[in-house]
Amino acid sequence: MQVILLAAGQSTRLKPISDKNTLEFNGKALIEHQVAALKAAKMRDIVVVGGEHNLEKLKSILKPYKNVVVVEQKNLKEGMAGGVLAGAAKVGHKNIMVMSTNDVVDPSVFEQAIAGAKGDVDGAIVGAKVESYFPGGYLKFDKNKMLTDIVEKPGEGKEPSNWVNIVLHIYNDFPAFTDRLKKDKSKADGRYEHALDEYIKKGKAKMAVVKYAGYWQPIKYPWHVLNVMAHYFDNQEPKIDKSAEISKTAVIEGNVVIGPKVKVYNNAHIKGPAYIGEGCVIGNNALIIESMLGNNCVIGYSSEVTRSYLNHDVWTHGTYVGDSIIDENVSFGSGTVLANLRFDEANVKVDIKGDRTDTGTHKFGAVIGSGARFGVNSSVNPGMKIGANSFVGSGVSVDKDIEEGKMVLLKQSWTVTKNNKMANTDSREKLK
Amino acid sequence: MQVILLAAGQSTRLKPISDKNTLEFNGKALIEHQVAALKAAKMRDIVVVGGEHNLEKLKSILKPYKNVVVVEQKNLKEGMAGGVLAGAAKVGHKNIMVMSTNDVVDPSVFEQAIAGAKGDVDGAIVGAKVESYFPGGYLKFDKNKMLTDIVEKPGEGKEPSNWVNIVLHIYNDFPAFTDRLKKDKSKADGRYEHALDEYIKKGKAKMAVVKYAGYWQPIKYPWHVLNVMAHYFDNQEPKIDKSAEISKTAVIEGNVVIGPKVKVYNNAHIKGPAYIGEGCVIGNNALIIESMLGNNCVIGYSSEVTRSYLNHDVWTHGTYVGDSIIDENVSFGSGTVLANLRFDEANVKVDIKGDRTDTGTHKFGAVIGSGARFGVNSSVNPGMKIGANSFVGSGVSVDKDIEEGKMVLLKQSWTVTKNNKMANTDSREKLK
Amino acid sequence: MQVILLAAGQSTRLKPISDKNTLEFNGKALIEHQVAALKAAKMRDIVVVGGEHNLEKLKSILKPYKNVVVVEQKNLKEGMAGGVLAGAAKVGHKNIMVMSTNDVVDPSVFEQAIAGAKGDVDGAIVGAKVESYFPGGYLKFDKNKMLTDIVEKPGEGKEPSNWVNIVLHIYNDFPAFTDRLKKDKSKADGRYEHALDEYIKKGKAKMAVVKYAGYWQPIKYPWHVLNVMAHYFDNQEPKIDKSAEISKTAVIEGNVVIGPKVKVYNNAHIKGPAYIGEGCVIGNNALIIESMLGNNCVIGYSSEVTRSYLNHDVWTHGTYVGDSIIDENVSFGSGTVLANLRFDEANVKVDIKGDRTDTGTHKFGAVIGSGARFGVNSSVNPGMKIGANSFVGSGVSVDKDIEEGKMVLLKQSWTVTKNNKMANTDSREKLK
Repeated sequence: MQVILLAAGQSTRLKPISDKNTLEFNGKALIEHQVAALKAAKMRDIVVVGGEHNLEKLKSILKPYKNVVVVEQKNLKEGMAGGVLAGAAKVGHKNIMVMSTNDVVDPSVFEQAIAGAKGDVDGAIVGAKVESYFPGGYLKFDKNKMLTDIVEKPGEGKEPSNWVNIVLHIYNDFPAFTDRLKKDKSKADGRYEHALDEYIKKGKAKMAVVKYAGYWQPIKYPWHVLNVMAHYFDNQEPKIDKSAEISKTAVIEGNVVIGPKVKVYNNAHIKGPAYIGEGCVIGNNALIIESMLGNNCVIGYSSEVTRSYLNHDVWTHGTYVGDSIIDENVSFGSGTVLANLRFDEANVKVDIKGDRTDTGTHKFGAVIGSGARFGVNSSVNPGMKIGANSFVGSGVSVDKDIEEGKMVLLKQSWTVTKNNKMANTDSREKLK
Repeated sequence: MQVILLAAGQSTRLKPISDKNTLEFNGKALIEHQVAALKAAKMRDIVVVGGEHNLEKLKSILKPYKNVVVVEQKNLKEGMAGGVLAGAAKVGHKNIMVMSTNDVVDPSVFEQAIAGAKGDVDGAIVGAKVESYFPGGYLKFDKNKMLTDIVEKPGEGKEPSNWVNIVLHIYNDFPAFTDRLKKDKSKADGRYEHALDEYIKKGKAKMAVVKYAGYWQPIKYPWHVLNVMAHYFDNQEPKIDKSAEISKTAVIEGNVVIGPKVKVYNNAHIKGPAYIGEGCVIGNNALIIESMLGNNCVIGYSSEVTRSYLNHDVWTHGTYVGDSIIDENVSFGSGTVLANLRFDEANVKVDIKGDRTDTGTHKFGAVIGSGARFGVNSSVNPGMKIGANSFVGSGVSVDKDIEEGKMVLLKQSWTVTKNNKMANTDSREKLK
Repeated sequence: MQVILLAAGQSTRLKPISDKNTLEFNGKALIEHQVAALKAAKMRDIVVVGGEHNLEKLKSILKPYKNVVVVEQKNLKEGMAGGVLAGAAKVGHKNIMVMSTNDVVDPSVFEQAIAGAKGDVDGAIVGAKVESYFPGGYLKFDKNKMLTDIVEKPGEGKEPSNWVNIVLHIYNDFPAFTDRLKKDKSKADGRYEHALDEYIKKGKAKMAVVKYAGYWQPIKYPWHVLNVMAHYFDNQEPKIDKSAEISKTAVIEGNVVIGPKVKVYNNAHIKGPAYIGEGCVIGNNALIIESMLGNNCVIGYSSEVTRSYLNHDVWTHGTYVGDSIIDENVSFGSGTVLANLRFDEANVKVDIKGDRTDTGTHKFGAVIGSGARFGVNSSVNPGMKIGANSFVGSGVSVDKDIEEGKMVLLKQSWTVTKNNKMANTDSREKLK
């Protein structure tokens, strides 16, 4: 079986976080985790479909992997259908697995899906079990577990099953499906699903529904990055690299990975699970709890980083970062605070493409794009997004999203008068 | 002898701090401290007079005490006279002690007062010794130490003695006094004192003046809470509860009480005298000096609390709280600072019912009502009062009192322009 | 040989830092360092020329030194020429060294200069070697190393040599020179140099150029104070005074001098080179890196002071001070941050008499005059100057220089509305 791994999506709902595929977890890009998992499941040939925005990065990341080719989907407006067809041009077998990097799953799903596609069927489609309503496509199937319909976003209470379609589809006769897909004239947005629907309804294809109740995490919204981080924590083995320098008074507890050349200074405290990338510096008295740091981060003196994801080269100094997602090359001036709890302690909402979207949690901080800078004593309200390459001036209290590439400076008003109160040192002794 | 303990006062000068009677010191409400002291002095029957605002709380607190009844003064406008009469309806003896919870005294005063009321007199009245002018009623007495007059607020330099009237009065024939009190037609405000005056002048009653030079602290203004706190520190025995979890690198020094289930994290430092209530969490690197914490407070990472009184459920995080009084259920966002020293280092003044009132100290922070919330990086000037259930937004610098139940949000002006300065990571290495 | 040591300059470019001569390095005023160096080089008689602004201080500092007299230059507008003539009135020898306290040099220069003035010459003039362009007077000399001209600020690329004139001039027949100087009618600003020029050109005097390649640091701009500090660090021997009290958990590393009666509290960390003056208090968790502190400074809880010069009586509390120069009797409210890195990481510039002057470094903080006060959570941008006796209010974000003697208070706008969100404690447990 060959795999078409769809990685061309532009992650617009993830903004200002850049392409999910290149985000690293435990020192490995997400795309690499997924390719490695497929390889471990004995998938030999993998065609990764990228877009103009990430093609070179994907190629560079996947260079070490044999039998993995990266192809470009030229027209990204053609959505998933376009991605599948771009991949189809590079595969030769009839037996194909189509998978998307949007979904993080347990590798056990591959075996299950392959088993499901065996026997007298034309393929298999994986349904992930959901406990509460999820705005996706629900699988309807007959008593033989053969797919009869996919109901898109039925609304809470109207779900036809507990099983939601995730893009992990096996086709035993892929050309039969792609012939149909090529001819399909429906809109890009739902063209793949429409062709699949026609394939089973008009084409009488039998697609077995594989009921998968294991780990599944879509990466659609920024806060999903924190969920995926937690997943990779669950799978990490604690390790402190020999080249790391750790002060005797520093405390490292729980499941913590500390990369090469990391320095941990006096009285710093790392409470696992945590991952500290190569070359990071953890300053005096710093506190890191359940967080993942990319390479070369500097968590300065008296900073706290809690339940957060920091990409490479993030610098803090007397900063509080809680429940936040920070892309690479971001720095925070001393005294910057990312607030992570509303006054009313309600769930934090984030503006996603104009919709106030509930993060599902009452503790959520900020989402910050790469290249952002924060002046000293700046503040960010819960749920704010700061665009890439935007600079937030000293003393600014961010209470609305900042677009990318902006310079935001504070305009303060002062009263300036003659100072008639001379300060003396007489009282100093008594103040000590 | 039976006791009428007056506890119906509404503590308006103490605002935004709630009823003094229910404030806890060393884990016990003030009313309970006073009842326990009376019991220890062999007072069997105690009638506590409360008001609508605190009746249920008083009943609940005093439930475990035998022969203590709580009665309601229906019309609080009738002041002390009304309170005494409400209590009078519940006592049967002729020999009665009238006392107010406004005054914190050493228990030795009771024995002194009782001794003073013995012999050929109609009762005794306790005078507390003052070293400097106090705006109260000064006792005038003859060579036999019999009260001749009470001079209200004579003004500095015009005091008839060093002895100030505190409400600890013993009547050997209480009905004789209350008959007079019931008929008295003077204004509520001074009616009790007027009746007492008539009782000695027209009624020829002999009230012995008891000269008391021991500990006396009225609780009239918020800062008196800190004085009372210091008093209870003087009387506490250091103790660390067995169920407390204290990090090996935490430092506890001096006279410190640590309650059950308290957690003290790494490198936290508690400098006594201090009292840490049940279930509190003292975070990494936190510093607590000469302060009292109610139950379930969380003093977060890198917070300092110095010379302050915190009621239950107060949360700090990267916060400085100095010389302040904080009622229950208050939380401070990271970076909040309560300033406690004026630029000119003069005594801090607080606005009490429209009067700028000198706290008598140059180090004084804020007075904060229950249910208040502070956004990140907010600041409070010395001597400010923040009303109960008021929320102070991120970045707000409080320079005037905030009434209760307000939402105060910062309106900032920014200049937002295109950012032409791209941040790169090239310089990061040299910055390390 | 007698020495005229010029110390009457008003250091206008150093503002708001006060007179350089009285700034202490390693517990000794700069003037004292220079007198001591001259004494060590066997200079017996030294005439120090001061001005009205520093005369008494100079006298007081130099009192213990024999054969050192302090004279006043009455008219400071007469510049260096006036200073030299004021000194000339107090010297008797013909053989005179003229030196300025503007330049910090290695004591080896004196021997070199004296040797250069020997033989068949009328004196010597010291040239300090420069590697890059310096806006001073460049020495032009003939093949016998006899001075032929001083070219003032020739512009980069047009320098006649690598040797810059520093005020360390020896005259073998001083009266011959001063006769000329007295009669010179050119403007005060260049009168000394003009007279010297005439002395060699019209007077045919032979002034040998002494090429000095050792340590040389002019003190012209505030940031030069940090360079001089580094110089004195290089010459200090580590020492911890016996009367200092240092917590067992404090860390002192590198070349550190700790003066008498200093207290270093728990988990404080001092990374040398550093100098901590008498009576300083270093609070819990404080971090001090490569900095010099005068006497009686208090570096409070959770403060960082990095690569900075602090004069006496500077108080911090939860403050970040980086790459800054702070004159005496300054205090910082909790949460104050002196930013020391621009967003674009370019060299920091400082406004010196109207010119934006490059400090030559991308890490530079603030320059703060004596008697300044900072309110809580105030911020200062890189390169700002705060005048002496100016008070900066709570929450102010300083983005332009503050003149001396100003009271700067923040005018904030708030929206104040009824708060409909009551805070409860129900959620507290889950938040812990």
